Amino acid sequence: MITLSSDFGWAYPAAMRGVIAARSDARMIDISHEFPRGDIRAAGFWLRELLPWFPPAVHLVVIDPGVGTERAVLALDAGDHVLVGPDNGVLIPVARTLDPDFDAYELETIDAASDTFHGRDVFAPLAAEIHGRAPQGLDTFSAVSSTDEWVDLSLPEPDIANDSAVGEIVVLDSFGNAITNVPGSFVQNDFGAEITVNGEPVSVERTYGAVDSGDRLVTVGSHGNVELAVRDGRGAAGFDVDVESAVRFSKRA
Amino acid sequence: MITLSSDFGWAYPAAMRGVIAARSDARMIDISHEFPRGDIRAAGFWLRELLPWFPPAVHLVVIDPGVGTERAVLALDAGDHVLVGPDNGVLIPVARTLDPDFDAYELETIDAASDTFHGRDVFAPLAAEIHGRAPQGLDTFSAVSSTDEWVDLSLPEPDIANDSAVGEIVVLDSFGNAITNVPGSFVQNDFGAEITVNGEPVSVERTYGAVDSGDRLVTVGSHGNVELAVRDGRGAAGFDVDVESAVRFSKRA
Amino acid sequence: MITLSSDFGWAYPAAMRGVIAARSDARMIDISHEFPRGDIRAAGFWLRELLPWFPPAVHLVVIDPGVGTERAVLALDAGDHVLVGPDNGVLIPVARTLDPDFDAYELETIDAASDTFHGRDVFAPLAAEIHGRAPQGLDTFSAVSSTDEWVDLSLPEPDIANDSAVGEIVVLDSFGNAITNVPGSFVQNDFGAEITVNGEPVSVERTYGAVDSGDRLVTVGSHGNVELAVRDGRGAAGFDVDVESAVRFSKRA
Repeated sequence: MITLSSDFGWAYPAAMRGVIAARSDARMIDISHEFPRGDIRAAGFWLRELLPWFPPAVHLVVIDPGVGTERAVLALDAGDHVLVGPDNGVLIPVARTLDPDFDAYELETIDAASDTFHGRDVFAPLAAEIHGRAPQGLDTFSAVSSTDEWVDLSLPEPDIANDSAVGEIVVLDSFGNAITNVPGSFVQNDFGAEITVNGEPVSVERTYGAVDSGDRLVTVGSHGNVELAVRDGRGAAGFDVDVESAVRFSKRA
Repeated sequence: MITLSSDFGWAYPAAMRGVIAARSDARMIDISHEFPRGDIRAAGFWLRELLPWFPPAVHLVVIDPGVGTERAVLALDAGDHVLVGPDNGVLIPVARTLDPDFDAYELETIDAASDTFHGRDVFAPLAAEIHGRAPQGLDTFSAVSSTDEWVDLSLPEPDIANDSAVGEIVVLDSFGNAITNVPGSFVQNDFGAEITVNGEPVSVERTYGAVDSGDRLVTVGSHGNVELAVRDGRGAAGFDVDVESAVRFSKRA
Repeated sequence: MITLSSDFGWAYPAAMRGVIAARSDARMIDISHEFPRGDIRAAGFWLRELLPWFPPAVHLVVIDPGVGTERAVLALDAGDHVLVGPDNGVLIPVARTLDPDFDAYELETIDAASDTFHGRDVFAPLAAEIHGRAPQGLDTFSAVSSTDEWVDLSLPEPDIANDSAVGEIVVLDSFGNAITNVPGSFVQNDFGAEITVNGEPVSVERTYGAVDSGDRLVTVGSHGNVELAVRDGRGAAGFDVDVESAVRFSKRA
């Protein structure tokens, strides 16, 4: 199985599907091609949430604002999964989740037909080749070398105290929910109660349906993080926040 | 075969694909994940139009604005198809189309890892399990109980007379065509003629190409219903209507 | 393998997937269903860029603004590929790329259940049937006749001199890059230098990353054509151009 992730939108992903289909019978599953363009941190967050649900697979990831520059091409051996993508940090959070002791390999890139579409010309052929060689490890490739030098990506850590937390918005989802980096455990005893969000009282609820349509709530999303939401609306607008906005939570005494 | 339908947009559907792929070799086909958010009536309409074209399958449907509340989880045995989704009415129109005598089962829900993403944590595992047990019927599950109490959904019925009809807009499609609940048979003898739509004359045509670019027309869409369209434009804007707008048709004597 | 391309957006493609799945076990791969609505030239360009990366396949293409009118239904035998779609030119550029001597067949259309959705009622069943008969040629169908009369589509040709070129914007991609019809060879010796674009100096670069975020550049896209881009932005806006805008390039002495 090969999964495909990119920020390419509607047209270019088909070229990657074709390149893989021409070289491999592997089942292909699209993760999404609507990752926010060039946003390595957002993609790092979402891949960490999504890929661990899959069975063992080769995961092709092309969020690559540095395409054509000197950045390396990585393959990470993480548990039963292999992650293939650019060396810009996007693969690291999910690799750590899959296997804290993942092994990293730098791949000799093949000659690229273009300087602007390595997804098609470099990453997709490599993913197909890696899939075809399994279960041989990446260390059997002549064109790879083990490396300990790769670009790291750490998602921001919140400051958590007993009755307060300061975090930030990491991503918005497609519903407009604003997902913070504060773990859900911070509010685990507060369901049904109010806390303040940037100074304003908001109720903490297990489900969107617990408040009236249009009302704001604090909840714990499926990713396990505290999120700011509006029932049948967009949390980001309702709380006037965007990615990287600071969010201060305080429990009422 | 398992089909997937939701209103999740670009990111979350991948988690459902992963959960199913980890539990089943079933072929997966996406219906769409762009159903209008939380709009049970629109989803009920579209599923009724789309799913009957498929061969026997398990259809996973997650348009679920009540996620995490007390609403039940249903599996409907409808002809050779099984529909799995929330008990909010969204499954009913297509179930009736597939088999007017469909059987309904309420499923004991498994412990959900989250209160906000039952698509991933409840519905997808159930769909995979149901698919894996086929051709055993749903009545062989220990965790289900037959039920006659489920939330119904009836799409609105028009008032049809010989020379006039009063209906409403049920959905807009992605072209902006405004699809009414008036059956195409109402205009079957009027192709090439004019009728009035909310008092204004419009020609009835078999094809969009029969009028000039930018002109309005009444036609019968692929769903068999009367629709309001603008060639190369958006019918909803051209007729100044939206979902639930009343539409009055009158034939000229 | 059957690939699917259309301008249908989110809902209707599922009906085509169902029709094919009900008639064929063929693997289905979506190219895209977000082709610009009714834009035959843009679809002709993109299909020429995307489909040749695939292994032998039946390619179903439904960009069909003349649906329901008298336009014919074509199947083109182009190398190891078969292209199925309306006779409006959309299939021609990719057919020429796959095989300059492609053979064209006109298909007797089956009775259509609707006048507005031939993708579901005409093209999808034909694609499934053609796939099922392979490797028998199209000439073994009783319902086809060889034809030399089909609607042509030529993408516009630029005027190229030694130090200047006049072309036009053919399509915008989903990043907003404005793709011209000027071949990349025109700037192959100019990387790192400036040329003028409609009178204003812009640097020619191999990669987006070679300029600062927000800056304009001229580059050669993955399609091999000169494109106008803005790093982390939208080239069409940055250069104030749209599809069919004229673009004049001049090299500085």
